[in-house]
Amino acid sequence: MSDFQANLNKYAELAVKVGVNVQPGQILMIDAGVESLEYVRLVVKHAYAAGAKLVKVNLSDEAITRMRYDLAPDDSFEIAPKWTAAEREELAENGGAMLAVVSNNPDLLKGVDSSRISAMQKVSGEAFSKYREYAQSNKLAWSIVAVPSAAWAAKVFPDLPENEQVPAMWEAIFKAVRVDLPDPVAAWQQHIDTLNAKAAYLNEKKYKALHYTAPGTDLTIELPKTHLWVAADSESERGTAFVANMPTEEVFTAALKTGVSGTVSSTKPLSYGGTIIDNFTLTFEKGRIVDVKAEQGEDTLKRLVEMDEGSHYIGEVALVPHKSPISESGILYYNTLFDENASNHLAIGSAYAFNIEGGTTMSREELAEAGINQSLAHVDFMIGSADMNIDGIAEDGTAEPVFRGGSWAF
Amino acid sequence: MSDFQANLNKYAELAVKVGVNVQPGQILMIDAGVESLEYVRLVVKHAYAAGAKLVKVNLSDEAITRMRYDLAPDDSFEIAPKWTAAEREELAENGGAMLAVVSNNPDLLKGVDSSRISAMQKVSGEAFSKYREYAQSNKLAWSIVAVPSAAWAAKVFPDLPENEQVPAMWEAIFKAVRVDLPDPVAAWQQHIDTLNAKAAYLNEKKYKALHYTAPGTDLTIELPKTHLWVAADSESERGTAFVANMPTEEVFTAALKTGVSGTVSSTKPLSYGGTIIDNFTLTFEKGRIVDVKAEQGEDTLKRLVEMDEGSHYIGEVALVPHKSPISESGILYYNTLFDENASNHLAIGSAYAFNIEGGTTMSREELAEAGINQSLAHVDFMIGSADMNIDGIAEDGTAEPVFRGGSWAF
Repeated sequence: MSDFQANLNKYAELAVKVGVNVQPGQILMIDAGVESLEYVRLVVKHAYAAGAKLVKVNLSDEAITRMRYDLAPDDSFEIAPKWTAAEREELAENGGAMLAVVSNNPDLLKGVDSSRISAMQKVSGEAFSKYREYAQSNKLAWSIVAVPSAAWAAKVFPDLPENEQVPAMWEAIFKAVRVDLPDPVAAWQQHIDTLNAKAAYLNEKKYKALHYTAPGTDLTIELPKTHLWVAADSESERGTAFVANMPTEEVFTAALKTGVSGTVSSTKPLSYGGTIIDNFTLTFEKGRIVDVKAEQGEDTLKRLVEMDEGSHYIGEVALVPHKSPISESGILYYNTLFDENASNHLAIGSAYAFNIEGGTTMSREELAEAGINQSLAHVDFMIGSADMNIDGIAEDGTAEPVFRGGSWAF
Repeated sequence: MSDFQANLNKYAELAVKVGVNVQPGQILMIDAGVESLEYVRLVVKHAYAAGAKLVKVNLSDEAITRMRYDLAPDDSFEIAPKWTAAEREELAENGGAMLAVVSNNPDLLKGVDSSRISAMQKVSGEAFSKYREYAQSNKLAWSIVAVPSAAWAAKVFPDLPENEQVPAMWEAIFKAVRVDLPDPVAAWQQHIDTLNAKAAYLNEKKYKALHYTAPGTDLTIELPKTHLWVAADSESERGTAFVANMPTEEVFTAALKTGVSGTVSSTKPLSYGGTIIDNFTLTFEKGRIVDVKAEQGEDTLKRLVEMDEGSHYIGEVALVPHKSPISESGILYYNTLFDENASNHLAIGSAYAFNIEGGTTMSREELAEAGINQSLAHVDFMIGSADMNIDGIAEDGTAEPVFRGGSWAF
């Protein structure tokens, strides 16, 4: 077995044992692109070895996806993926697990009419709304991992010869997910403990608000009274630990829906629905986004914000030191799974129910009452930099440093 | 464009225009293996060009399928594909179209415990029973075409060097589906007319029974009073012409369920559920299979016959001259789509409702009353040879030659 094959196998095992943490008798569903087939086969093997009752793989092809956007009639984008959604709801209700293997070409939908993209996002957002609630309240174990595709690697390493792009990306991913270490499963446990210590500190502090300052950013985000900071590991309804994102470097909580004010500027491009949005600024009043400006992809960003009422507000608030391993690699991935773990970020749209006390068993009305946002959208965007300072504002109004110069201040 | 690319494109166009005959506004679903992706992309393109509203592609991978049989626990084979079945039922109810692109490795499940295979066949047969009724009564337009895979080509051309196997198979398939001709769409229309003339002759005759004789075969098959001989082209409920099998050389009807007696011997191996059944003999009394013998795969064949009550009986009766183009190629495909079109064949299990007058609008009870068989199974097996004679028995008992020396006698 070559080093690459050995790493690929360790990575598959990591997704099964740490990512979704497959349990005996469980059904595992996998979404993946055809280019990740070699990796997916290894994941299937490890999942059955862990006792999976069935591993169902949904393979997609980006060329076929793009043809729909280019060639289908307009009413194609009104068709809801209702059977796929129903199957996923059942998977969650029966305690299954869901693994997404992403390898998206960040420019897949470049040049496509943005009204088609937003129509598709909306119809699929609505179809998957129940499943998304299940996932966001950890009813099932779910995880996202990444595998290079030729198009994605070409975007990330444009200056490398073509035959070196995918290998370079594999090397970067193996490093980001700690597969280059002798015992990745143990390394992940240690990493999770480190992140949990940060979350515990912040949960002790119970700040009333965070105040962000950086070039182009002066933003205050109030936090719900019952907010909870969470890191890397989650627990499904059935009590199984899982890691929803690999890699993950973030410590995150929910924003108070109506408590966001000021202006924030993006620091990395955002790949959303197959197009790039870059160099953008959002302005908030009482939580609501009242102004949107972008040098690239402004139309797409505006359509995202206008998707529904909740997409005018912030859900998630996440802290990631600018000196995180992914950030230090200096690689811009054009993929949120990586880029959000290299930078402080916020999410437009829904908050996670588990980010407030008792949230996972609350109704939609109770979640709204607790002050957290709900939406068909949940789109993370990056705002961190070496110049960012964040203060924690205590109940009595005093300020304490949380971030200084882009890194943890405690 | 190379000759191969040009042929591949013509073949994709043929599947769209003649096979499923995609209509504007229609949804087309495609089942295909990952190895046929290049072809499938071309089909998707032609389908959108023909006005398809959506082309939904379900890609499968045989290595992942095999892992389930090898590694999953026994109760994995009790899981019904109910969402897939529901989606297909809706497709049929809304006048969609279904294209299967087959490229199966005939030995995919070699060595797998036959109880797993029959459990899977049964659970999936039950789940798809309503959809199968829809397809067998032409509620939707559906078609099956074939594309080589490395494993399948290796089985068919074991004596060729590995890099020549898939190209040889492409050449054989292009010839079998008339893609090597300058205008395949026109060639198909002419071919359909020829087959329809044979069907018209037999419908005029309205034989009471057929009597088959050949080495190892002495079989009488009575036909329902209202039987209809059908060839190549079909018409969906919405009135669209389609061709369900490409290639197709057969003229076929339904057997009278209780009217089959005697013994019949197979003349080609049967690839069923990933295993090979070869050199087998079935004995019938009053339509029922009372004895099963096979030199290879006897256990699998017995489990097939025992699937349900209807799988003990014959559904379809099909006539194909031994001198058909596929037969003359001398290639054994180990795939029923081809091998059944090189040989007279019968099908164990259900009959097609359109093979009796008014059948497509009959209830299950009415179909049973008309004397045709219903089952979860429909498995064709080949019985034709250069030594086969068939007499048509008229209502008054007189015999007329239908086949002599393996070919049409009229």
